[in-house]
Amino acid sequence: MLQINKLHTICIVGVGLLGGSIGLAIRAAGSGARRIGVGRRQSSLDKALEYDAVDEVTLDMAVGVREAELVIVCTPIGTIAAMFEQMAGHLPKGCLVTDVGSTKAGIVQLAHRILPKHVRFVGSHPIAGSEKTSVEFARADLFQNAACLLTPTRRTDEGARQDVEAFWQALGAHTHVLTPRRHDHVMAQVSHLPHAMAAALVRLAGHGNAIQFAGQGFGDTTRIASGSPELWRDIFKSNREATLQSLERLTRELERFRQLVTRGDGDGLAAWLEQAKTQRDAWVRQRYAQKEVEP
Amino acid sequence: MLQINKLHTICIVGVGLLGGSIGLAIRAAGSGARRIGVGRRQSSLDKALEYDAVDEVTLDMAVGVREAELVIVCTPIGTIAAMFEQMAGHLPKGCLVTDVGSTKAGIVQLAHRILPKHVRFVGSHPIAGSEKTSVEFARADLFQNAACLLTPTRRTDEGARQDVEAFWQALGAHTHVLTPRRHDHVMAQVSHLPHAMAAALVRLAGHGNAIQFAGQGFGDTTRIASGSPELWRDIFKSNREATLQSLERLTRELERFRQLVTRGDGDGLAAWLEQAKTQRDAWVRQRYAQKEVEP
Repeated sequence: MLQINKLHTICIVGVGLLGGSIGLAIRAAGSGARRIGVGRRQSSLDKALEYDAVDEVTLDMAVGVREAELVIVCTPIGTIAAMFEQMAGHLPKGCLVTDVGSTKAGIVQLAHRILPKHVRFVGSHPIAGSEKTSVEFARADLFQNAACLLTPTRRTDEGARQDVEAFWQALGAHTHVLTPRRHDHVMAQVSHLPHAMAAALVRLAGHGNAIQFAGQGFGDTTRIASGSPELWRDIFKSNREATLQSLERLTRELERFRQLVTRGDGDGLAAWLEQAKTQRDAWVRQRYAQKEVEP
Repeated sequence: MLQINKLHTICIVGVGLLGGSIGLAIRAAGSGARRIGVGRRQSSLDKALEYDAVDEVTLDMAVGVREAELVIVCTPIGTIAAMFEQMAGHLPKGCLVTDVGSTKAGIVQLAHRILPKHVRFVGSHPIAGSEKTSVEFARADLFQNAACLLTPTRRTDEGARQDVEAFWQALGAHTHVLTPRRHDHVMAQVSHLPHAMAAALVRLAGHGNAIQFAGQGFGDTTRIASGSPELWRDIFKSNREATLQSLERLTRELERFRQLVTRGDGDGLAAWLEQAKTQRDAWVRQRYAQKEVEP
């Protein structure tokens, strides 16, 4: 099983908030490995060095990965295929490769298609981060007590799965294994569709400039709508089927709500709202127990 | 025009977060008026005294209002009709009456129907507060720089409107005058429907226990779903027409989103998301300029 303090060379492709936090967390976990950052812009890489997120940087993917025992791809999901293409011919035999993309089925397919058979790929998705994307917001403890979802397939060897689990656990995360398809459905429900809803609510509030009278609750509910449109466009394109299925389910919930309001069914409305409150409050308690913060 | 430091007796009906904050803010504004709290439970009234939100308390509406120059009804909207009934026979001539309910058309109708002609009613809705409802969270500065929407009608005399405006301005609020109907449509868009959506998203996330993998963004988006089901049931019952109209508009936004995802229209998706981000970011900047906090 992978022991993080026995690794010599780790390559981080894309040193932003997540890549930078991985770099800091690797060092905080006691690993003395060379941390090599690969990026597209020298200015970003210089900043990553400045924040001590990596030890060496390069614009050349081949140079970055050729001695790595572990490669973590932390670029936006729309660019991951290109990253795989660039590294495919240069990855050493047995190298462990993972990514941190918010969707998994498409990325896992790309990895199987593009990466050579002699490397070991397992998809990862740490549930951490924020709307900030730059390395200056990176934190060594970003993954402490965070969930990290791993998506091995039937083609993944057991040792690779164990190694990726050990890596994230060394960074403080709780790992969970899901199929790529299940992962994408779960994320459509708890992340991707909520994002679309937040955007839809802002658009609704824009009609007649009602938004000028919006308060704190509106600010919370729509906060994620201030995220990057390009990043979210790619998530929706990459998770089309599950997004549409969750949207259909949400539409049924809204139809139920519409009927209750139309009928003026007070008991039904209270029960519908109460069930949501109960579920959310239970989730908050569980999260609080793990994280010791009100989420 | 009303001058808060010339009032002798102010009655606050319902001394929770809002009523208590009004009591504290009246004193902070330099008024030496007797602040009388009316409530249903002695224990709540004792707590209001303990936090210095009022000077005197009573369970008897008649005793509370009979010498008041200003009465502010701060009970949940489902109880406001009963409060009006209880005070109607005891309000002194010329008394100014207002409320802080989150819906206005129904409450204004109730006031016109139930309150005697010799009192002056204007509906108010300060956009402040939180999911906390108890007096222990009351703050003297709760209304500082908050918007307060006033809903006079053609039957409201101009002096009454000016007096209610002066009252809220003395507490630090920015006042805006809207018709009751326009108020309710605005609130359906920026508050009531967002609440229903947050509840619907929690219910969606409950399917298959996906909620266990929800992160910070989900917590923000659904925070308001932890509010009181009874309070929100009453809001939806009281604002039926505008809620249904906003829901129809939101459904059209979601249908547009569904089409973009179905077609894999990346440019269309990015534009749809970008417009929401631009609107929200502008709102945050405006709010930040007023409040000096990120909402």
